[in-house]
Amino acid sequence: MLSKCKAAVRAPQRAVQCVRQTPIAISSIPHRASLAPYHLGHRHTSSLPPRSPELTTLTPKHIAQLRTLLPHPSSVISTLDDSAAPDDLIPFNRDWMGKYEGRSGVVVRPISTEEVSKVIKWCAENGVGVVPQGGNTGLVGGSTPIHDELILSLSSLTRIRSFDPLSGILIAESGLILEQIDTFLSKQSPSFIFPLDLGAKGSCQIGGNVATNAGGLRLLRYGSLRGSVLGLEVVLPDGKIWDGLSGLRKDNTGYDLKQLFIGSEGSIGIITAISILCPRRPTTHNVALFSLPSYEACLSVFAETKTHLGEILSAFEMFDRTSYEAVKKHGGARRVFEEGNEGEFYCLVETGGSNAEHDSEKLTRLFESLISSSSILDGVLAQDTTQSASLWQIRELCPESLSKAGKAYKYDLSVPVEKMYSLVEKMRERLRDVGMLRDDGSGKVKSVAGFGHMGDGNLHLNVVATEFSDEVQSAIEPFVYELVAQNNGSISAEHGLGSMKAPYISYSQSSTSIELMRRIKKMFDPKGIMNPYKFIT
Amino acid sequence: MLSKCKAAVRAPQRAVQCVRQTPIAISSIPHRASLAPYHLGHRHTSSLPPRSPELTTLTPKHIAQLRTLLPHPSSVISTLDDSAAPDDLIPFNRDWMGKYEGRSGVVVRPISTEEVSKVIKWCAENGVGVVPQGGNTGLVGGSTPIHDELILSLSSLTRIRSFDPLSGILIAESGLILEQIDTFLSKQSPSFIFPLDLGAKGSCQIGGNVATNAGGLRLLRYGSLRGSVLGLEVVLPDGKIWDGLSGLRKDNTGYDLKQLFIGSEGSIGIITAISILCPRRPTTHNVALFSLPSYEACLSVFAETKTHLGEILSAFEMFDRTSYEAVKKHGGARRVFEEGNEGEFYCLVETGGSNAEHDSEKLTRLFESLISSSSILDGVLAQDTTQSASLWQIRELCPESLSKAGKAYKYDLSVPVEKMYSLVEKMRERLRDVGMLRDDGSGKVKSVAGFGHMGDGNLHLNVVATEFSDEVQSAIEPFVYELVAQNNGSISAEHGLGSMKAPYISYSQSSTSIELMRRIKKMFDPKGIMNPYKFIT
Repeated sequence: MLSKCKAAVRAPQRAVQCVRQTPIAISSIPHRASLAPYHLGHRHTSSLPPRSPELTTLTPKHIAQLRTLLPHPSSVISTLDDSAAPDDLIPFNRDWMGKYEGRSGVVVRPISTEEVSKVIKWCAENGVGVVPQGGNTGLVGGSTPIHDELILSLSSLTRIRSFDPLSGILIAESGLILEQIDTFLSKQSPSFIFPLDLGAKGSCQIGGNVATNAGGLRLLRYGSLRGSVLGLEVVLPDGKIWDGLSGLRKDNTGYDLKQLFIGSEGSIGIITAISILCPRRPTTHNVALFSLPSYEACLSVFAETKTHLGEILSAFEMFDRTSYEAVKKHGGARRVFEEGNEGEFYCLVETGGSNAEHDSEKLTRLFESLISSSSILDGVLAQDTTQSASLWQIRELCPESLSKAGKAYKYDLSVPVEKMYSLVEKMRERLRDVGMLRDDGSGKVKSVAGFGHMGDGNLHLNVVATEFSDEVQSAIEPFVYELVAQNNGSISAEHGLGSMKAPYISYSQSSTSIELMRRIKKMFDPKGIMNPYKFIT
Repeated sequence: MLSKCKAAVRAPQRAVQCVRQTPIAISSIPHRASLAPYHLGHRHTSSLPPRSPELTTLTPKHIAQLRTLLPHPSSVISTLDDSAAPDDLIPFNRDWMGKYEGRSGVVVRPISTEEVSKVIKWCAENGVGVVPQGGNTGLVGGSTPIHDELILSLSSLTRIRSFDPLSGILIAESGLILEQIDTFLSKQSPSFIFPLDLGAKGSCQIGGNVATNAGGLRLLRYGSLRGSVLGLEVVLPDGKIWDGLSGLRKDNTGYDLKQLFIGSEGSIGIITAISILCPRRPTTHNVALFSLPSYEACLSVFAETKTHLGEILSAFEMFDRTSYEAVKKHGGARRVFEEGNEGEFYCLVETGGSNAEHDSEKLTRLFESLISSSSILDGVLAQDTTQSASLWQIRELCPESLSKAGKAYKYDLSVPVEKMYSLVEKMRERLRDVGMLRDDGSGKVKSVAGFGHMGDGNLHLNVVATEFSDEVQSAIEPFVYELVAQNNGSISAEHGLGSMKAPYISYSQSSTSIELMRRIKKMFDPKGIMNPYKFIT
């Protein structure tokens, strides 16, 4: 941690000022679940895929059978045998945004991999559709039912099976909440860090993170889960348990099966435990936030940052003025920069290294260079971990704050970094053209915001509307996907397909790819019981 | 580059001495192909899988058909129409070690992806077995035929299709030799580095590297190809071209199909081009070599190195005295340390950073710590790039030098790092017990050596024998695989399965895994024409 702000980094007019020693007061991030009260969302019934006649409709007799498989009394709750009221199932049937909602009558919560296996075997034998559910913090409707599928919640699989303090290899069950693991490591083995971090860390579960190949805030430094995850335990669609919990960094004996399950969104199996390599925690940290006049300035600061910080750069995040205003209004963030120095864009830079003095010198050189090139309007450097956390929270609060600002349509797009922000600009233009975005604020769309992981070319585009409606949606889609396809991008960089993007996969994947994916799905799940109507259909 | 050896790192008795300014003279690494003269190896006919009656025996008529598909005169060479003498096909039929040899009568060398597609479509229609071949530098008999399969050489696919100097994304065809790409980058865009490096870089082809998921010398810093490779172009077993040449760092739209092909060893398709993310080349480099008394000392130096060098550590390699003696005798390396300071083990440490002064300080602290803890016998630090290359060559020459020392049985094993060297010791014990390894050198086994990528827990175990024979082999196998299985390791960390390890996969994979792999193979290649008798059988 830098002990003081270097005089050398100040410039006469555009000072890289210190963050006040009183930490910036931002209310701590509420869990997603508590952010979104369970009001009934708009159910896009018109665009829902029809219920498959192949899948069994559950009856009280089925529930009785499930109870024999899972003897613990709270492992099965159902409206079919009156062990639950319809309201009890709403937190499972509806997503946190209130955008997706199914009508399942039963939630099962197995307490072991063997119980998951028993349930899935039973579902396969009885032709029952299953939705695996972790923290239900997804953004594409992947973890809630479409119709009346059985919901299998992983939330009772919460054991840390082992942690090796020599190698950093952690074996843990799927239902553990990401923050619990972070806390476990901080306490038990503070020299290691979990390679994944997300705004939803207080609610999301690690099994769901792996099943959706979550990206998040540490990807630039530690790479994707495809590299960190060493092995998996998976219950296959016939109920068989695949024990692939390897603890090896290198293993070239056959196809890397775990890669099929990472990011498979419950379509070919249910991840019940993961083996993951935790990297060494950097011993020194710095967080800086810059205010910038334009996206071009962001690009130039990004290039300069990579040059000066090299191997200690651990995150480079961007958010625009619209996002920042939402965080100030709905997230409780105080102003960081003086009004005259607030720009159209903000970049958060984090470093992680092993020598505080070296890191400080590298940062100082970066600041000097940024000031001399006039790329930034202003900049602040956190003085302690509390201030670092406060700066991070501004970025982390972007998605939630925009959801509080209205009904937020969320798109998670990947295009070459130099074209990233043009998607926001083109979306604004489009919505102005159709009269939904108006200068006087009277339109059905209140604002269009962009933020994201600039280091990975990953933009989160948010369209904040007054309502979730087919009209607004059809003004955005498929326009947004066409834009992405024109730029050879991905319509889902990290959020997955779920039910939201399943119909649009052809904007990012060729017909040959889709055909191969369908064959893989069919091979693993010939009865089509796993998370039906979503992902690959 | 450190400009001079710091006085501070010297200790009274065990000095970390400078490498002489005259670089250590080690002959440059010859290409593998030129190292191994094509003498006839021992053909383990007794253990060969029988020829499949399902696969077609080629006739001159077939060769004529192939010539209509590939009009370029040198694209088809065959003993069946006398366009080639049997000797012409030996470099394709036999591996570089002279250990594996098939009897194919035809080699095709398509010059484009479309031509590969035509050949494979024809093979599928005619039930012809195909062996895809890159640089033929593998160690497990994966790229040579077992019987009379058609050999499809990728060596004429050598175009660099594009390189983006902003993002570092390279799209290149499979037949390019690794060193050619390194040279291309050094000349065209020296701020980027190819994320893979291997001793065989002068001969191996990048398509083969990806098809075998090669690990190599840069894995510790840049991770595996599973992270660096962004996309692939693959000709599928029915001849269809799958264009998955994505240029995106993040894309969660469906199963990550490319992962199935990475490391698939030609069993489900032929990689014709790759899209790969080249990381930024560090601007500062250092290479040090330490002499150590024991493997325990290696472990302790490894731990200290990680602590002191943190984010700048880019490689940590180990080799034992037996390997080093072979390099001195057969690789032309001069002595680095004084005789009294030569130890039982050697560790090579490389750093890559962005600030020479910072790196130098970190190294100095490491040296001071190593000297005060008496972990090392001696150490040298390269003073310039020539000396760095010389130190690296000692490590890189280990495999070739041991092959020159006799008939080297090579095993590529992955176990937890603390148990890594015990495999070498147990193998010596075993071979002494059966009377093959004798103190007077009269046994059928001359020596047992170990070297490898300590940073990845990956040991290369070499048993140097007087001959390749069933007797020696059965003294080693399956003993060595049992040892690995007892330690929950992998019988192939980076070399793959090929024909050598295909029969032993169950030492590293469960029956459920093998069953899933067989189903995947069957799904992609129902006729079993792709690289038959190997990998997953």
